[in-house]
Amino acid sequence: MTGVVTIIDGKEVAASVIEAVKASAEGYTAKTGGKVGLAVVIVGNDPASHAYVGAKGRMAKECGFNSIQHTLPEDTSQQDLLALVNTLNADPSIHGILVQLPLPKHFNSEEIIQSILPEKDVDGLHVVNAGKLATGDLASGLISCTPAGAMLLVRKIHGKDLSGLNALVIGRSNLFGKPMGQLLLNANATVTMAHSRSRDLPGLCRTADILVAAVGRAEMVKADWVKDGATVIDVGINRVPAPEKGEGKTKLVGDVDFAACKDKAAAITPVPGGVGPMTIAMLMANTVIAAHRTAGLEVPVF
Amino acid sequence: MTGVVTIIDGKEVAASVIEAVKASAEGYTAKTGGKVGLAVVIVGNDPASHAYVGAKGRMAKECGFNSIQHTLPEDTSQQDLLALVNTLNADPSIHGILVQLPLPKHFNSEEIIQSILPEKDVDGLHVVNAGKLATGDLASGLISCTPAGAMLLVRKIHGKDLSGLNALVIGRSNLFGKPMGQLLLNANATVTMAHSRSRDLPGLCRTADILVAAVGRAEMVKADWVKDGATVIDVGINRVPAPEKGEGKTKLVGDVDFAACKDKAAAITPVPGGVGPMTIAMLMANTVIAAHRTAGLEVPVF
Repeated sequence: MTGVVTIIDGKEVAASVIEAVKASAEGYTAKTGGKVGLAVVIVGNDPASHAYVGAKGRMAKECGFNSIQHTLPEDTSQQDLLALVNTLNADPSIHGILVQLPLPKHFNSEEIIQSILPEKDVDGLHVVNAGKLATGDLASGLISCTPAGAMLLVRKIHGKDLSGLNALVIGRSNLFGKPMGQLLLNANATVTMAHSRSRDLPGLCRTADILVAAVGRAEMVKADWVKDGATVIDVGINRVPAPEKGEGKTKLVGDVDFAACKDKAAAITPVPGGVGPMTIAMLMANTVIAAHRTAGLEVPVF
Repeated sequence: MTGVVTIIDGKEVAASVIEAVKASAEGYTAKTGGKVGLAVVIVGNDPASHAYVGAKGRMAKECGFNSIQHTLPEDTSQQDLLALVNTLNADPSIHGILVQLPLPKHFNSEEIIQSILPEKDVDGLHVVNAGKLATGDLASGLISCTPAGAMLLVRKIHGKDLSGLNALVIGRSNLFGKPMGQLLLNANATVTMAHSRSRDLPGLCRTADILVAAVGRAEMVKADWVKDGATVIDVGINRVPAPEKGEGKTKLVGDVDFAACKDKAAAITPVPGGVGPMTIAMLMANTVIAAHRTAGLEVPVF
């Protein structure tokens, strides 16, 4: 690639989403007199989960939401957690419900997630929301936050219509790869789903105008896998040793060898600061969308 | 291709599915004392729809099911049809409900389809069944009959595990293309979804070890689109003029130029007699599966 590469600034895009969410939340309050309500439920003492939940709560407050956190002890029973979800389902002041995962091992997480009303499932994990996305009904479903955010970054480069572009997603998880493929297909890309059982992954990647990596293997995608001028979206967040920073130090890297691939790509997301910041922004967007739908108001578009 | 091509005989495979359904239905009766029940609802006088419904009813009887047909007048209201579906939903002797499409124009078909209980939705059209398939939950969902049947033909050639094989589906409909792609991905194929907005469709097709065409364009796929030794699954059914049969005569052809492509492919489905006969067989399979699930019996595998 001889041109200048665009380093896609996820922090900046996320900040602009948050600004739009704030404006939309203000509009909601002006029209209804109420606040957009997000309930986050956390069970147990996992420090990383508490850090994530804390960040979500702070962001929700910054957006002008009514932000509720339910912190339950590690030994909470399945029945008690189901009862809490049911209470939140029935609470008209709550528009979004998020149960922080992973739950402690004694829970049946799937049953908990599926007990959230689809219209309050701002994580986009309910089977009804998966079905709506799979059948292209983006107007009434809620889309999983990380693929929704990655898609917004793709749109910053290519616009809404990806007709004629080949997109390749590495990784077929329910949380990211599959919904990402469905979003790309819905935007008219020709979409290939590749994964650990794929043959000649480098060759497949070289056909991609839009290359999305979500496998959780540090710097797996090499420069000679990237088509000249491709857009590269790196969803991986891998902690690796960083002896250059001192003994025992670590750093975060993506699934893409960023330093080498940025010379082939026309646009690329860094790690950190690419897809990462989009997830929480899209969570806020989903919540304000859910509130508008429930109130029968015109639904904001992000 | 120098070897001998396998012409995949859908009639034969469908007949073997029906034999297995019969045995399974007998087992159901032996264990429960009841019969597997399929209700087919048809509204109006469309001759083609009546022919399809008649064939389904005859096949259900042949399988040993309790086969019920509800024939409603053209001017039936949305509310009356919803009421009938609700009655069938509540009827424990009915395990599968099929509302023949298309409905007359004054109906909201989507609302009717979504009103069928997912566990009785033997057409696999409910959003919950779409979501289960999209997230790889094949153990509790019901799969749309034509892709399920096409997949069974793929398995006859390649077995259950498609690791390392590239599959390409042309056409991204909710009825066929999308669920077919999800089934192929679930079987570990590397899956590309191509469609009318794809660039260089012939070139894309030439990468496919398994090529599935479902676009509704007569004989669109040409011999030089087919990779040597590929498996070609033709889902198209197009009626075209057949002057060689006499003035005004027509014939059915697929989306694949069969006569030319069979010399490149290692295996290929004909039209008619390929995927076509599988749809009704898989409808029967879904019904007997639904009955076993409801009764808590071991569920047959097809």
